[in-house]
Amino acid sequence: MGMSVFTANPANSVRSLGERELLNRIREWLGAAAPASPRGMGDDCAVLPASVAPVNLVTVDALVYGRHFDDSVPAASAGAKLLKRNLSDIAAMGGTPLSAVVSLILAPETRVDFLEAFTRGMAACALEYGVTIVGGDLTEAPGFFGGSLTLLGHAARPITRKGGQIGDWIAVTGALGGSILGHHHEFTPRLREGAWLAAQPDLCGMMDVTDGLAKDLCELLPVGGAAALDLAELPLSEAATELAARDGLSALDHALTDGEDYELVFTVSKETDPIAFRARYEEALGKPPCFIGKIIAHVGRIRLLEANTLLPITPGTGYEHFGKIN
Amino acid sequence: MGMSVFTANPANSVRSLGERELLNRIREWLGAAAPASPRGMGDDCAVLPASVAPVNLVTVDALVYGRHFDDSVPAASAGAKLLKRNLSDIAAMGGTPLSAVVSLILAPETRVDFLEAFTRGMAACALEYGVTIVGGDLTEAPGFFGGSLTLLGHAARPITRKGGQIGDWIAVTGALGGSILGHHHEFTPRLREGAWLAAQPDLCGMMDVTDGLAKDLCELLPVGGAAALDLAELPLSEAATELAARDGLSALDHALTDGEDYELVFTVSKETDPIAFRARYEEALGKPPCFIGKIIAHVGRIRLLEANTLLPITPGTGYEHFGKIN
Repeated sequence: MGMSVFTANPANSVRSLGERELLNRIREWLGAAAPASPRGMGDDCAVLPASVAPVNLVTVDALVYGRHFDDSVPAASAGAKLLKRNLSDIAAMGGTPLSAVVSLILAPETRVDFLEAFTRGMAACALEYGVTIVGGDLTEAPGFFGGSLTLLGHAARPITRKGGQIGDWIAVTGALGGSILGHHHEFTPRLREGAWLAAQPDLCGMMDVTDGLAKDLCELLPVGGAAALDLAELPLSEAATELAARDGLSALDHALTDGEDYELVFTVSKETDPIAFRARYEEALGKPPCFIGKIIAHVGRIRLLEANTLLPITPGTGYEHFGKIN
Repeated sequence: MGMSVFTANPANSVRSLGERELLNRIREWLGAAAPASPRGMGDDCAVLPASVAPVNLVTVDALVYGRHFDDSVPAASAGAKLLKRNLSDIAAMGGTPLSAVVSLILAPETRVDFLEAFTRGMAACALEYGVTIVGGDLTEAPGFFGGSLTLLGHAARPITRKGGQIGDWIAVTGALGGSILGHHHEFTPRLREGAWLAAQPDLCGMMDVTDGLAKDLCELLPVGGAAALDLAELPLSEAATELAARDGLSALDHALTDGEDYELVFTVSKETDPIAFRARYEEALGKPPCFIGKIIAHVGRIRLLEANTLLPITPGTGYEHFGKIN
């Protein structure tokens, strides 16, 4: 259980600190995740080191109180989620994360102890994944708490969504559905899996599942291609089953349409033997992927395969919202 | 005069468009400023080209309705300002801007025509300064309109704030004060000036003036150093004089303490002849800089020099707010 974001007691609010002290505290909370100027905060820009892998990936995602997290989410998990949403995007390109800048927009009545836990959670996550937080910005806005994080990374071979052809295999890294029960902030970004997959010459396309498989998967399909999914192979999360028991939808519905799975979905060349690929993957990563279908030549985008019969799925049941435009 | 940001008429709101159509429109409005995927929007990350100058500068700044702009500011100018605030930071490092990602947080009742003008204004500014907008994110939040922009750039010799020593000259690129009368969104980021300055071996330190000279200048001073400013040399903007005539403060007060000048303040080696430096600068850039003082050994941070007498200035009269932490 988290703590409330805002306080009516001015003594506990960020307003009580003033700008300079607030910045000092944030740097203290970021600790080892934030290098000293000019590599980090303290000048007009951060200066990135020339010695590391060149930056060739950039992504941005936001996290807003009341939308992406609420009081049921621990503050530290919310802070980590802001970074992990972006880590998942780097993973989806087969990349390695490098540096991040954070823009926080917050009300003066934001609790200092909430912000501390949020920032420390983000910093711990950054250290875990080798990310340095090199810059930031704080802006006041009444009644608001949210942030945007831009993450820079490197990929020797950036894997886009495109590349899958008719006949190619479709696979996912893990179980889907029901993220609202906790997975939406407890997930592990699939950086190891993404990096391993990007090194496989028979990997065609890849993305992370954030808006529900049924919606996102369309992005991996070539023109004239549809996804034929084998219902029996779709990995259902325990949370999908648990939700289904409550709300009358099926676990399959949840796995296909719930958002924020943060698993990777990818396509593998039709020439590849999926059994051999799965064995290689499991040997490298300790857990097998799930081959869930194939790209077929078909009008429409997604078909579900049940007892060798193709069933249509109606698009638009996925998580519809403003969202990622990069 | 701008237009209002929100509308009570659902037919004119971004809510009426839905996610997919809104994203399509934004890409259309960005036009030539936004390259196609994978260089731009449309995948999990943008893939930056390897052929250009390597990214070694990163900065982020936010722009929030009601705080950084209001209905008196044309929507196109507000959109341009979001980018220009960051361009000013790249200028302050002596760098060249390259790519940007934008995170917009907006209410469903945001007017479509406001968002169009805002986005087109940002795109026109990007084209003017050679910036590509390669990624973005859209997030809903009730009653809110704002954005954060992260700008990547390159500098062969990044100029930090530090480097000034006792005896060095202090100069600024242009007139100060009164930005609230329009300059705060009409300013030109000093990229040409910053790049030229960074190429001068006798340039010591540099930053942009965003929180008022009296506050910002402290960042350029070494330990044990103070700024002795010659009041007669301080360039006062017409707006500073106009404001002074209205509010009873002096134009000098406005020049020293108003925020959002977006001029560069820099230090030049004490070995340099300021007259010769000014001539070289004017020949290259068409307009002379203003040498406004020197760094002296002194307790305290800023002293004003009037008729050869040092007057103390009380810090804390500058623009105090949450702000830049990088």
